Amino acid sequence: MNKKNPAIVVFSGGQDSTTCLVWALRNFGEVRAITFDYGQRHKRELGCARKIAKKLSVPLKVIKMDMFSKLTKNALTDRKQAITKQEGGGLPSTFVPGRNHVFLSTVAIYAYQLGIHNLVAGICQTDYSGYPDCRDKFVKSLEKTLSLAMDYEFKIHAPLMFLTKKETVKLMKKLGGIELLKLTNTCYEGGGKACGKCPACELRLKGFSEAGVADPLTYI
Amino acid sequence: MNKKNPAIVVFSGGQDSTTCLVWALRNFGEVRAITFDYGQRHKRELGCARKIAKKLSVPLKVIKMDMFSKLTKNALTDRKQAITKQEGGGLPSTFVPGRNHVFLSTVAIYAYQLGIHNLVAGICQTDYSGYPDCRDKFVKSLEKTLSLAMDYEFKIHAPLMFLTKKETVKLMKKLGGIELLKLTNTCYEGGGKACGKCPACELRLKGFSEAGVADPLTYI
Repeated sequence: MNKKNPAIVVFSGGQDSTTCLVWALRNFGEVRAITFDYGQRHKRELGCARKIAKKLSVPLKVIKMDMFSKLTKNALTDRKQAITKQEGGGLPSTFVPGRNHVFLSTVAIYAYQLGIHNLVAGICQTDYSGYPDCRDKFVKSLEKTLSLAMDYEFKIHAPLMFLTKKETVKLMKKLGGIELLKLTNTCYEGGGKACGKCPACELRLKGFSEAGVADPLTYI
Repeated sequence: MNKKNPAIVVFSGGQDSTTCLVWALRNFGEVRAITFDYGQRHKRELGCARKIAKKLSVPLKVIKMDMFSKLTKNALTDRKQAITKQEGGGLPSTFVPGRNHVFLSTVAIYAYQLGIHNLVAGICQTDYSGYPDCRDKFVKSLEKTLSLAMDYEFKIHAPLMFLTKKETVKLMKKLGGIELLKLTNTCYEGGGKACGKCPACELRLKGFSEAGVADPLTYI
């Protein structure tokens, strides 16, 4: 293990960030993971994150962050008019802009304290659909801003940036981590087994199917 | 009141941000303020912030944020070695890098929800002493990053960026807000009256003295 080149992974416990975690383990000496408990609808992902980190012997830090729900709720209850006026209208009430920005910024502060320069995130421009902080040009700009903010060189690695779901599955296969994806269940229905029918399951199954790889997750 | 050009001020309740708040009231149609309760040593500033905002009829939002103390404490208790290895050694245990970065980013998210584009902060490069996120080049970079993060144009105003303490006092005089500074007490000693001797009081008094303006604050 080369401790001279450590990295921290923004880790949600989902398919993409699990792929990034395995990618990081292959590319960096020492790997840590951070999960944010920010009031996400898929609380189950927190459990997935813990299981996967444990299985991979990766130290996991869970950071509770109620900022998003506070800011969103307040905007909704406080000034309804402003909300409807804002750009890109029709956003769901749970939508919070700048999530990747805040996650990466928080991880950077933690990384600074530990003397770590490499941040890894499963951000993917291919997924960009109204989430501007999934774009490569945002990530590059943030890398520069964070480095200036702390006068400390950060490198943000986003190995999935330009991959399709199919290519992400292929990458995980190449990394030898497919079996691990049995532990990532991001079904919207939230049962013990994945439904195989909701949009999240559909997207996942399509990626596996196109990659010609069997999904190890248990479906109903 | 021109509601078409509103602004949000990052407001600590100290001398600099109070000057910025008055500056914003003169330059923008509708002004709001945000104060962060992040475990700062000078809890008294929160009270100052409330008083000043009330006096100026500015809506004040207080955001509790325990992220810094968590990240710092953990770094200190978890991995002492990494702390001593890190760049710029000899930092006090309460030091947290990236504070302005996180404050402005949070305010930006709130501003986005409200359809506001102007952010105002009392950041001052002249004060820069190991706090890289006080520098103008950082602020410019963050402005770009936040705009990319939300695909929404932000403008960060830092009217004190290149001012000395003397010039900040003169600016406040010009804005007609000197009397308001009676409510900003950032003395380290923390008594009801300012001590006039601690480094914070000394710096403040020097600014007023050089500007040839009487400090309205009550000293012991």
